[in-house]
Amino acid sequence: MARDLDRGRGKADRTDAMTDALSQPNDTVLIITEDGKKFYTRLAPGYRQHTHQGIIDHDQLIGQPLGRKIVSSTGHACVVVEPSLAELMKEVKRKTQIVYAKEAGRIIFKMNIYPGRRVIEAGSGSGALTIALARFVSPHGRVYSYEARDDLLRNAQANVAKAGLGEIVEFKLRDIAEGFDEIGVDALFLDVREPWLYLVQAKNALKTSGFFGAIVPTTNQVSKLLQALHTYEFGGVEVEENFLRTYKPVPGRLRPEDIMIGHTGYLVFARNITPENFPEPPPRKRRQRLGS
Amino acid sequence: MARDLDRGRGKADRTDAMTDALSQPNDTVLIITEDGKKFYTRLAPGYRQHTHQGIIDHDQLIGQPLGRKIVSSTGHACVVVEPSLAELMKEVKRKTQIVYAKEAGRIIFKMNIYPGRRVIEAGSGSGALTIALARFVSPHGRVYSYEARDDLLRNAQANVAKAGLGEIVEFKLRDIAEGFDEIGVDALFLDVREPWLYLVQAKNALKTSGFFGAIVPTTNQVSKLLQALHTYEFGGVEVEENFLRTYKPVPGRLRPEDIMIGHTGYLVFARNITPENFPEPPPRKRRQRLGS
Amino acid sequence: MARDLDRGRGKADRTDAMTDALSQPNDTVLIITEDGKKFYTRLAPGYRQHTHQGIIDHDQLIGQPLGRKIVSSTGHACVVVEPSLAELMKEVKRKTQIVYAKEAGRIIFKMNIYPGRRVIEAGSGSGALTIALARFVSPHGRVYSYEARDDLLRNAQANVAKAGLGEIVEFKLRDIAEGFDEIGVDALFLDVREPWLYLVQAKNALKTSGFFGAIVPTTNQVSKLLQALHTYEFGGVEVEENFLRTYKPVPGRLRPEDIMIGHTGYLVFARNITPENFPEPPPRKRRQRLGS
Amino acid sequence: MARDLDRGRGKADRTDAMTDALSQPNDTVLIITEDGKKFYTRLAPGYRQHTHQGIIDHDQLIGQPLGRKIVSSTGHACVVVEPSLAELMKEVKRKTQIVYAKEAGRIIFKMNIYPGRRVIEAGSGSGALTIALARFVSPHGRVYSYEARDDLLRNAQANVAKAGLGEIVEFKLRDIAEGFDEIGVDALFLDVREPWLYLVQAKNALKTSGFFGAIVPTTNQVSKLLQALHTYEFGGVEVEENFLRTYKPVPGRLRPEDIMIGHTGYLVFARNITPENFPEPPPRKRRQRLGS
Repeated sequence: MARDLDRGRGKADRTDAMTDALSQPNDTVLIITEDGKKFYTRLAPGYRQHTHQGIIDHDQLIGQPLGRKIVSSTGHACVVVEPSLAELMKEVKRKTQIVYAKEAGRIIFKMNIYPGRRVIEAGSGSGALTIALARFVSPHGRVYSYEARDDLLRNAQANVAKAGLGEIVEFKLRDIAEGFDEIGVDALFLDVREPWLYLVQAKNALKTSGFFGAIVPTTNQVSKLLQALHTYEFGGVEVEENFLRTYKPVPGRLRPEDIMIGHTGYLVFARNITPENFPEPPPRKRRQRLGS
Repeated sequence: MARDLDRGRGKADRTDAMTDALSQPNDTVLIITEDGKKFYTRLAPGYRQHTHQGIIDHDQLIGQPLGRKIVSSTGHACVVVEPSLAELMKEVKRKTQIVYAKEAGRIIFKMNIYPGRRVIEAGSGSGALTIALARFVSPHGRVYSYEARDDLLRNAQANVAKAGLGEIVEFKLRDIAEGFDEIGVDALFLDVREPWLYLVQAKNALKTSGFFGAIVPTTNQVSKLLQALHTYEFGGVEVEENFLRTYKPVPGRLRPEDIMIGHTGYLVFARNITPENFPEPPPRKRRQRLGS
Repeated sequence: MARDLDRGRGKADRTDAMTDALSQPNDTVLIITEDGKKFYTRLAPGYRQHTHQGIIDHDQLIGQPLGRKIVSSTGHACVVVEPSLAELMKEVKRKTQIVYAKEAGRIIFKMNIYPGRRVIEAGSGSGALTIALARFVSPHGRVYSYEARDDLLRNAQANVAKAGLGEIVEFKLRDIAEGFDEIGVDALFLDVREPWLYLVQAKNALKTSGFFGAIVPTTNQVSKLLQALHTYEFGGVEVEENFLRTYKPVPGRLRPEDIMIGHTGYLVFARNITPENFPEPPPRKRRQRLGS
Repeated sequence: MARDLDRGRGKADRTDAMTDALSQPNDTVLIITEDGKKFYTRLAPGYRQHTHQGIIDHDQLIGQPLGRKIVSSTGHACVVVEPSLAELMKEVKRKTQIVYAKEAGRIIFKMNIYPGRRVIEAGSGSGALTIALARFVSPHGRVYSYEARDDLLRNAQANVAKAGLGEIVEFKLRDIAEGFDEIGVDALFLDVREPWLYLVQAKNALKTSGFFGAIVPTTNQVSKLLQALHTYEFGGVEVEENFLRTYKPVPGRLRPEDIMIGHTGYLVFARNITPENFPEPPPRKRRQRLGS
């Protein structure tokens, strides 16, 4: 990241060289073949990426600018780019349903994840959310990721390492019924089947006023979790769902895609503050006649 | 942020003192009165916050734990908490329509905003997005925020300072038709009425393969921007909109709120890579018979 | 309705007179004042409509074409039009939350309401859905509308009469726990707090293979109703919700309205056919990688 | 339909026979095989339906109650039911994109389609909307369905006949640029690529204050149509889109389906009343701070 800061800032005759980002070993990159297939890899000298359109040597890429066409061993063109965080998450090797970028964005903003924070998540799942959390607490924060299944933990760990974020995350093979090792963490997120079972443990790990979050797929789970958050005296409880609608980007025929994701999960947020201490917002006025 | 890292990690007999976050001068906090009104302030010794339920001395708060009840000069209880980023953005003093947290989350994830990045935005507006960008490029990255109107710039600057992020952002009073000072930035976001007029300037400022984004409220603007992105040879163009649906958090009567935001804006993303170099993803199969 | 059929069909020199619909006594019309306020009335000789912009004599309207400007007693212009069914429903005098047109449309299509059908609904509520049902079973069908509260029944009855559909609907003041008088009805719709309590009664009233429907506002109610539909052996069970998103109709600045209805209710549909006899549709393939 | 009215109304010892609907020749029915496949047919003495699970003789069905299990020639069970209108529309033989039930419901309610009305539509497409229009104007109304392509017209005509509504609809092979034969119709709906080209023709066919509607898939088409509706002085213009979200109907694990239709089309409605005569509704107050 240091090199981000070294580049010239003054106004200047622009040359491509000046604005090029050069690939470095350990960079995570996305190789896109002519037919739009994506291969996601971490650059290492001497390594090679196999694709259905030939082989690309990592040494072809290291030290070279991103965003330019290169040619594979079989003569096919492809391009190498820096993946966005949304792409990084999507490309993890999946052994579970993942938390999608659209929900992860909400989690980051509602749970105050930012550089320097200490965050717990359970379970690790496939590590997609772990990658997002780790990226935003970098460089000095820390993610503690608990997972009860060994195979999932190892897959998540590999996914996080591939994204270059291994040093930020501490993985723990653990049934969280036994509790968390950390105390006073800023935020704690549960992506488990029965989050309502672990609220005492969560409360013990969170700092007072810390941020609690969870994702569950069914309305029954939301109800059970809400009941338990009430019992264990969390405040500021909120429930939401998020929809992403993508469009065909054609200027003269602009229209949404035919199909969209109809459901991923319900997000539940709360604060480690007793409701008695945390006043409810004033109710919105009912607007009965709007719409039709 | 250093204090985040100093706290004990080992398993321990938990006492509240161990998990308390103590307020410090310069912390941005949210004071919530008994009736749920929010007052957002930055702590400074000797200062006082006036509310409709009495005065709170900042000195009452500094060095004290968050999330506990305190009492105002008129004997009303209130609570002081750390605001989430979503709350910080919502509470800016508004002189313009702001970018909402739900869109800002997408911008952060799609445009690869993370610690250490260099990012341009124009215009500054009320500084809500500026706050989100600044928070995530911290501590070593930089946000260059361009604004053509002096009054807006000064308001945005005050909002960003209040959020404690003044050192990360460089504000510039400028008509961006004249171009940007920076070159090789990682990402550039336009929240202006006619973003299509500034694509040459954007291209000169962005690194090759850098991330471009814009928000516009109407479909006509989306079409014009798509046309211009094609003309100026940006690749990887995407258009999306995001919906947030909140629920009444009542376990036995779980239901969405009666009304929701129906529209904020269309997000348009692209990469500074010529489309020739940036293959389109393979088309999805049409599913004509789904649903009814 | 007869006059609808009497008008000429052949190609002809068009004169306004030929295409004018002339108001008749008993027509339900919408009077729209200069400032866009709507007054909904049923034409009767000698009657007058009071508005905040003066009085309009019904005799000014009877025998006159719709859609032309008229002048009130105070010299204000206004226009008289035929209300759409969506408008008719919206303009009922409300003593309860009503079923909206967007849900009513689904009910009509999913429950096979059409001319000649016999339909039960309970409760009558404010009569908005009653109006839609009555309109579509006309002229030879019948709606049986049950309501336990006398005041609501009388209000609904007045609303239905005003819409000119009084002869199609038979109102009954009744606690439906006692059962329905009719048997073999084509469709039965419940808009009550605890629809799961009345499934035996519903089954006794419905013809074999008849259409059952209900609307409930909370997910907990949906779950309870689904459980009971299973217990009482209804088949073909479906749950859905509907969103309506309106746009500002400005050609050069096309965009959705800022706010929209976020929730009205969940619709539950089923058939009076044992699940054993009613095979489930083949499951859709899971599409895990769509979207982001 | 007469038999609907002949059935007893009084309270009675219920027997299945009393509530059974018996299939008649010309009834349109849905045969559902054990594995959930649907076959849609019109009953005729001597006919047989071939399925992948054997043959069903229509004579097995005629005079028999719906909703009971029957056995195919190969010994497979299946059930015969009355299709809902939503199912009828979905099952048409498709040669074009169809108007879905969720949009058709809106068209019926917003354009005041009801028994006795005279309605024009163009083009006929695959006849799905035609079926809905015909059903609701029955028994004394009329649908005039214009189509420029002979093959489409013949397919639509077959679909409408199969639904038992052939006598209600008059199909016309015509380029609507030449105008419509009818005048003074109550409602006119355009499902064509360039609806803005036919507004003079539409105006000549509609009664004063009559209902105009159109469906188009892109925002660019909406803008063009809005511009033309302004030019040709239509009033009361509205634009909307509709979303249908279906749930997995499992009581203990209630959740929306993973995917949903993201787009079918934009509906545009207007009245044949000059905007000068048709006041705009008062604007809604902007609610800038709602949501996040």
